Amino acid sequence: MYPVKAYAAASSSSDLAPYSFERRDLLADDILIDILYCGICHSDIHVVHNDWGGAQYPVVPGHEIIGKVKAVGSGVTKFQPGDTVGVGCLVDSCQDCDSCHSGYEQYCSNGNTGTYNAPDKISGGYTKGGYSDKIVVKESFVLRIPDNLDLRAAAPLLCAGITTWSPLKHWNVKRGDKVGIIGLGGLGHMAVKFAHAMGAEVTMITTSPEKGADARKLGADKILLSNDPVAMKQHSHSFDFLLNTIPVGHDPNPYIMLLKRDATMVFVGALEPLRDLNSRLLIGKRKNVAGSLIGGIRETQEMLDFCGQHNIVSDVEVIAMQDVNKAYERVMKADVKYRFVIDMSTL
Amino acid sequence: MYPVKAYAAASSSSDLAPYSFERRDLLADDILIDILYCGICHSDIHVVHNDWGGAQYPVVPGHEIIGKVKAVGSGVTKFQPGDTVGVGCLVDSCQDCDSCHSGYEQYCSNGNTGTYNAPDKISGGYTKGGYSDKIVVKESFVLRIPDNLDLRAAAPLLCAGITTWSPLKHWNVKRGDKVGIIGLGGLGHMAVKFAHAMGAEVTMITTSPEKGADARKLGADKILLSNDPVAMKQHSHSFDFLLNTIPVGHDPNPYIMLLKRDATMVFVGALEPLRDLNSRLLIGKRKNVAGSLIGGIRETQEMLDFCGQHNIVSDVEVIAMQDVNKAYERVMKADVKYRFVIDMSTL
Repeated sequence: MYPVKAYAAASSSSDLAPYSFERRDLLADDILIDILYCGICHSDIHVVHNDWGGAQYPVVPGHEIIGKVKAVGSGVTKFQPGDTVGVGCLVDSCQDCDSCHSGYEQYCSNGNTGTYNAPDKISGGYTKGGYSDKIVVKESFVLRIPDNLDLRAAAPLLCAGITTWSPLKHWNVKRGDKVGIIGLGGLGHMAVKFAHAMGAEVTMITTSPEKGADARKLGADKILLSNDPVAMKQHSHSFDFLLNTIPVGHDPNPYIMLLKRDATMVFVGALEPLRDLNSRLLIGKRKNVAGSLIGGIRETQEMLDFCGQHNIVSDVEVIAMQDVNKAYERVMKADVKYRFVIDMSTL
Repeated sequence: MYPVKAYAAASSSSDLAPYSFERRDLLADDILIDILYCGICHSDIHVVHNDWGGAQYPVVPGHEIIGKVKAVGSGVTKFQPGDTVGVGCLVDSCQDCDSCHSGYEQYCSNGNTGTYNAPDKISGGYTKGGYSDKIVVKESFVLRIPDNLDLRAAAPLLCAGITTWSPLKHWNVKRGDKVGIIGLGGLGHMAVKFAHAMGAEVTMITTSPEKGADARKLGADKILLSNDPVAMKQHSHSFDFLLNTIPVGHDPNPYIMLLKRDATMVFVGALEPLRDLNSRLLIGKRKNVAGSLIGGIRETQEMLDFCGQHNIVSDVEVIAMQDVNKAYERVMKADVKYRFVIDMSTL
């Protein structure tokens, strides 16, 4: 057992404050990681505030974790002390169902184990995440971080990165495809970078000309203002793929109109009902809408290796742990380009 | 020019009544067909009543047409007088776009020509359909009907058949798949027959135990009552494919729950907004929803050949032309198992 310093939300308040606890000793396949950086994901805030129910206080959030291996269990073969590693949204799954066998641990039929606030099948408690100086994670859920990446800016790859990478790859986005990224936030800015690096012709679809200009700097080739009906009509039936990162319920029909025959729009942000999706629009040209959840471990490693080759990281604002509550307020106002990352040396 | 007897709706009334007009002489690639039978599709009623707008009276409905070739144009090579043929929902398309080249004339980028009430690119008027003694159709939109089929019961294959066949084939339904057919009407009853003949394990999903029992006679292996929440929960995440034939807007979420990871539900009936489709359900297991519109000419011929091999036809009630207005009333009350077919000798 070793002592862990963390920032956590207690049940009496959703603010985060210093917290310490004991963490289990290493099992044979465990890796002890000294955390260097942890990104702030909007879902951290939802859990801390118990927006989705089920918060098990004290909640130690954080699933965009970068660190150095401190120690390894007796059976660990792929990592050694000193390695730079990452941990994303998952720390366990059954590893015995069809989804796990296919490398899609996030869709585990027996329920994956989230990095925080999830029932921990090993300890019996609830998992605690990356706003902490240490974490213990099973070897098969630890990722290798390419040496050339800025480690602070690599942290958000573990959630915002893989959440957009996975659908772009699964739906086979390729060179020359006309790809639209809807919404420019933490997810959208990674999607623009990835789709651009994959060789697609990238259109940022947004209501904001300013965000459009920002997206160009990230790699977008074109801007389409979704509140301009003439422009939207000009792009009818023209997109090979749409990635919809809007984080709230909305009217999906104007976007569906943009899809080519047989093309797909994938939702990665909206966890709420959509307004009056018109199946006539799907029927008219055999269009598809789908959803996608983060990504599996194998594809997360592929994404990280791709980022190493193409020197892709997130655009981040690094903060001290003491500023995390202020950062939460800014995230809720969408006032960040595009991800806060906590420097854990300030803990 | 030759005289044509038909039943048509005039602008002053949506009832159908005898009507006669002159039809153009044959062009080189035209086929003149003596119509034997024509099915009644619910969309006939919508157009006659101008429910969707755009009705061009007099409307001669009918796009489930079976007949005999009476004469052929000078350039026709695939058909000769006496052949038994069919005409479905399409009589023309640009035949020069990506969709047409792919055999998907129904999705023609330049707009297909429907069998009735559509601008006729050749005559300049509006097409007139199968409630008629004759029709002239371009060779490439005429289908061959297998000799062994009951011609009266084959008529609905041209719309209800292909509308359900096309998505079952496109989404690769195969032996052993767990397939759910939602709704038992003209479309649903064909879907049950096809999915059964393809070797799938077919579940009829309906609110009505009586319809469930009827579906068993058509080939369904199992019944799932969608208003039984316990049964619905037992089938969560278990279907490889769902074909949704519900003809009106509805809550799609309980059905989405039934899909396996990566599986698809296809809408073929609802031309209206769906209620609050929850993208969280799509995201949770990378599920898909899509739409599908009738089918192309090549796949319609494949469907007809399959029907010949497996002796599949629709379950029909044959009526005289004079009873068509009464039949419309019964269709609107869903009081038909499962398709009315007009015997054109009564015209």
